[in-house]
This record gives sequence, C-alpha cells and structure tokens, in this order.
Amino acid sequence: MNFDLEKSVAVLERTPAVVRALLAGLPDDWTRANEGPDTWSPFDVVGHLIDNEETNFMVRARVILAQGADRRFPPFDRFRHVRLNEGKTLSELLDRFAELRAANLRELAGRRLKADALALRGEHPDFGAVTLEQLLSTWVVHDLDHLSQIVRVMAKQHREAVGPWAVYLRVLRS
Amino acid sequence: MNFDLEKSVAVLERTPAVVRALLAGLPDDWTRANEGPDTWSPFDVVGHLIDNEETNFMVRARVILAQGADRRFPPFDRFRHVRLNEGKTLSELLDRFAELRAANLRELAGRRLKADALALRGEHPDFGAVTLEQLLSTWVVHDLDHLSQIVRVMAKQHREAVGPWAVYLRVLRS
Repeated sequence: MNFDLEKSVAVLERTPAVVRALLAGLPDDWTRANEGPDTWSPFDVVGHLIDNEETNFMVRARVILAQGADRRFPPFDRFRHVRLNEGKTLSELLDRFAELRAANLRELAGRRLKADALALRGEHPDFGAVTLEQLLSTWVVHDLDHLSQIVRVMAKQHREAVGPWAVYLRVLRS
Repeated sequence: MNFDLEKSVAVLERTPAVVRALLAGLPDDWTRANEGPDTWSPFDVVGHLIDNEETNFMVRARVILAQGADRRFPPFDRFRHVRLNEGKTLSELLDRFAELRAANLRELAGRRLKADALALRGEHPDFGAVTLEQLLSTWVVHDLDHLSQIVRVMAKQHREAVGPWAVYLRVLRS
C-alpha cells in the first residue's frame, strides 16, 4: 500500500474513539496493570499518546514544512507522561487525547498538503534525513503499535486464567 | 489478576464497539489487505469472530453447564467464515458480530453463574479437561488476540512507507 494522506488520516482520526471504546469505564485491573517492572499500563500508553500529540508528530511536521536553516527535530521525552499524569483519571486522559488529536488533524487539513510537500525533509536525531511522508506514515503505525501494546498488556493479565489455551493465543507470547 | 466474571464481561461487551471504531468506513486498502498468502485481512478476522460467537465459546459453555454424559466440545471450523462471508460487506459483518455478542452475553448473564459453576469441566479435543472459567478467560483473550491481529495487519500495510522508523515499531516485527 502506497502512502495516501487521506487514507492515513482515516486511521488517525479513529484512534481516540478506538482507545475510548476499549478502555473507558473498565476496572483498574485492566487499565492500570502492566507487563512487569519498567513497562507501561494501558493508562501509561494513553499518556504517551498524549505526549506524542503535544511534542512529537505535528511539532516535527512543522519543522519540516518551515524548511528553515535548522531542520533538526526537537528531542522527545518518552517519560514525560509519567510525572505529568500522576493523580489524573483515565477518563481525563481519554478526553485530552481526543481533543489534541482533533486539533492536530485540523491543523494538518488546513495545510492542504500536495505531493511535493510530502517529499520535504527534516532531520531525525538518529536516522538523519526523513521525509514528511515517512513521518506521517509513522504517526499511523505508531497509533497501531500502541493499540497493539494496550491489548497485549490486557491479555497478559489473564495469562494464567486461560490454562492450556495459552498455547493457541499468540498475543500471550509476544 | 484472578478471573472475575464481571470484569471479563466488561471486556467482552466492549469488543464489538472497538472493532467498529477501528474499521467501520475505512478504505478497503486497510480492511481487505492481509499479511501474505493464507493469512487473514481485518475483514476475515471479523468473520472469524462471528464464527466464534455462533459455534465456539457459548456452544462450549452450554456443553459444560449441561454436564451430560458426553462433555466433548463439538469441532470448530477455523475456515467457516471464508465461504460464508463471500460477497458480504464489512458493515454487515460488524452488525452481525455486535448482535451475536450481545445475545451471547445476555444468555451468559441469564445463567447467573456462581463460583461452583466456573469450576465445572468439559472436554477439549486437544487439551482434555478444561474448566468453564478457563473457557471464559480464553474468550476474553481471544478477543484481544484478534484485535492485536487486526492492528498488526493494518500496520504492515505501511511497512515500507515508514522508512527508517520501522526499527522503532515493534508491531512491524511481530
């Protein structure tokens, strides 16, 4: 599948509703449990998605589109959400993620990007030159990656309870 | 996390809305693509979830709860959906899955299961004796397993498009 902006936005605009359908109102046993020390719970993952809305994908897209002298992406803090969301409820995080995503997609639509804009480049701290198209593709796959993480973390809370069926359930082995 | 019927139902009752939020209205490039020969698309996965509502989990729960002379589970056909859903739309499948799941959960609630019922056993063709609790736990993890599959299959459609970011995206390697 080649990159297509409209088809990518179709996924990006659905993610907040998917996360809400999956997690809103669930007992903490599902949403606050993780995979062990130094791993994230579904609550933490939603916090990380919020951080990405505030400090990653659209911030980097703006750097690329500005095509200024310095096209290096600002640093991204993977642990920002840990202190930021202490004491918050999952419901607050779900609302915040939905608001931020909607605002970012409004900004993206307002740019009316053409094919030549998608080929513009910025500089990633590890990879060097990357295109806007690669950044926007990654935004989509990043959503899917973290949806995958949320359901994996939830599944593992029932690792023992499923008994012999564990051998059939790929999500428990990943 | 110990098995808890109410907390398991909380996940089971959300799955149809999660799948709908993720897939309804998406272009076929996302919903009809798979991971290669003899693998399933998101459309196929929804078909498989429907088959499980019609011929697997509640059917097996009834066998266990009946505690008849023959407690062997009837066979399950993993490929039933392939011929059954030819020519159907994803929208039809999403509706069907939601109806069947709601009906099955109504039946389950109607049984007013107590702890002793959860310990009753049936006979799995491969594993031998399994409890109702293990069956119901597996129903939950089976949902999560196939949600994981849907997002993985979608993510892989952008495997090339993300460029160097592929190394950071675990879902592309699984």
